[in-house]
Amino acid sequence: MENSTTIFGIRAVIEAIQSEKSLDKVYLQKGLSGSLISELQSLLKQHHINVSFVPQEKLSKLSKGNHQGVVAKISPIKFEILEEKIPEILKQNSTPLFLLLDQINDVRNFGAIIRTAECTGVNAIIIPEKGGAPLNADTVKTSAGGVFKIPIIKVNHIKDAVYFLQASGVQIVAATEKTNQTIYEADFKKASAIVMGNEAKGVSNSVLKSVDFKAKLPMLGEIESLNVSVACGVFLYEVVRQRSPLTP
Amino acid sequence: MENSTTIFGIRAVIEAIQSEKSLDKVYLQKGLSGSLISELQSLLKQHHINVSFVPQEKLSKLSKGNHQGVVAKISPIKFEILEEKIPEILKQNSTPLFLLLDQINDVRNFGAIIRTAECTGVNAIIIPEKGGAPLNADTVKTSAGGVFKIPIIKVNHIKDAVYFLQASGVQIVAATEKTNQTIYEADFKKASAIVMGNEAKGVSNSVLKSVDFKAKLPMLGEIESLNVSVACGVFLYEVVRQRSPLTP
Repeated sequence: MENSTTIFGIRAVIEAIQSEKSLDKVYLQKGLSGSLISELQSLLKQHHINVSFVPQEKLSKLSKGNHQGVVAKISPIKFEILEEKIPEILKQNSTPLFLLLDQINDVRNFGAIIRTAECTGVNAIIIPEKGGAPLNADTVKTSAGGVFKIPIIKVNHIKDAVYFLQASGVQIVAATEKTNQTIYEADFKKASAIVMGNEAKGVSNSVLKSVDFKAKLPMLGEIESLNVSVACGVFLYEVVRQRSPLTP
Repeated sequence: MENSTTIFGIRAVIEAIQSEKSLDKVYLQKGLSGSLISELQSLLKQHHINVSFVPQEKLSKLSKGNHQGVVAKISPIKFEILEEKIPEILKQNSTPLFLLLDQINDVRNFGAIIRTAECTGVNAIIIPEKGGAPLNADTVKTSAGGVFKIPIIKVNHIKDAVYFLQASGVQIVAATEKTNQTIYEADFKKASAIVMGNEAKGVSNSVLKSVDFKAKLPMLGEIESLNVSVACGVFLYEVVRQRSPLTP
């Protein structure tokens, strides 16, 4: 699986981090030691980069080169920083729309959601460091190139973004069936952020506790949930509809 | 790829057709002749079953058994008949909602659309005999079992369904970017059918000419189109919203 988005070797990975390349994930060989490795590990921590400790065989599968126990996947995009990007957007737009993805697992869902977000004027997408689908070539493809057109922010935990946005005057609306309120009762004319949850578990309980409004889609059949990229599309278009000049 | 949905042998396939099993597709070996083959071919024509003529090697890949030049894929569901099902639904419901799929190619899109249709109370889905994604095990999975909960009608051409529905007093609304009208201008409080088009080409021109209303989704970004299963979800939920008791 060696391709243009894979780099290897201790020095190469250290330099990639120092030159501000966005690393999607770093694979480190178990039990490595030495001063360069220590330098790498502290850089990884400092930059909140996702690390997996794996056996040497796994690394040799990831890279045919002389990997020295270190292989990294470079992200096709540079992730933005919450504390910089949100104020910048709020300066330009008093009623922005943000989208928080609480551990979307499936790459095709992730890509389709980014595509829809771009089409509905979402100002930034916020994803967690860990637990979500990778932003790889498949994501780029299913997003129809959307990954290059919309800022994507990585945060340690989605809750960090919830608190930061609330403190900035943005209401947080979670898409969840754990409520009696439908999406049509939400007021999206305000500055808003929508939280979409994991395919199986939905929005996590700790995030649900912090949001300003919970909203569900009416379910008229027997099946209990929609595909998450479809549900996300319906939520984002409800914002578009409410903000449309045609809507009273 | 031999599984429970594959049958083979001339007699077996003839009997499957005669016992009203829904065949998704029949593969016939090129150049076969004989009276049984003629009987099979006239049955296939009579029942409008999708046939591919293929070399023997292809058949041997499809079935390890003694296929005698004939392999068929049985559909996991029995398709309904337009002229029977539509009047039956209209008798029970004066403002039904139908969904016409004009050659959706991708199995995952097809499945997600069926799932959304079930969740939004669509009364029947109408698909063409040819040119669409198969209704196979992947469709069943991505539909979250929706294929078993919603009637699916097969027609020779989508236009047949357009004319039949119009004659039955149902308005046809096409999802297309070839219009200035947005979805929010459509009146879904009437009996309605929505047409969603192929992933690449959209709704075919000949169908577009016959519809009562063309509607697009506002596109606020640079990307020109949404994933079709997402767009379909937004259309179906606009019907749900307009028909909701909360909507003025």
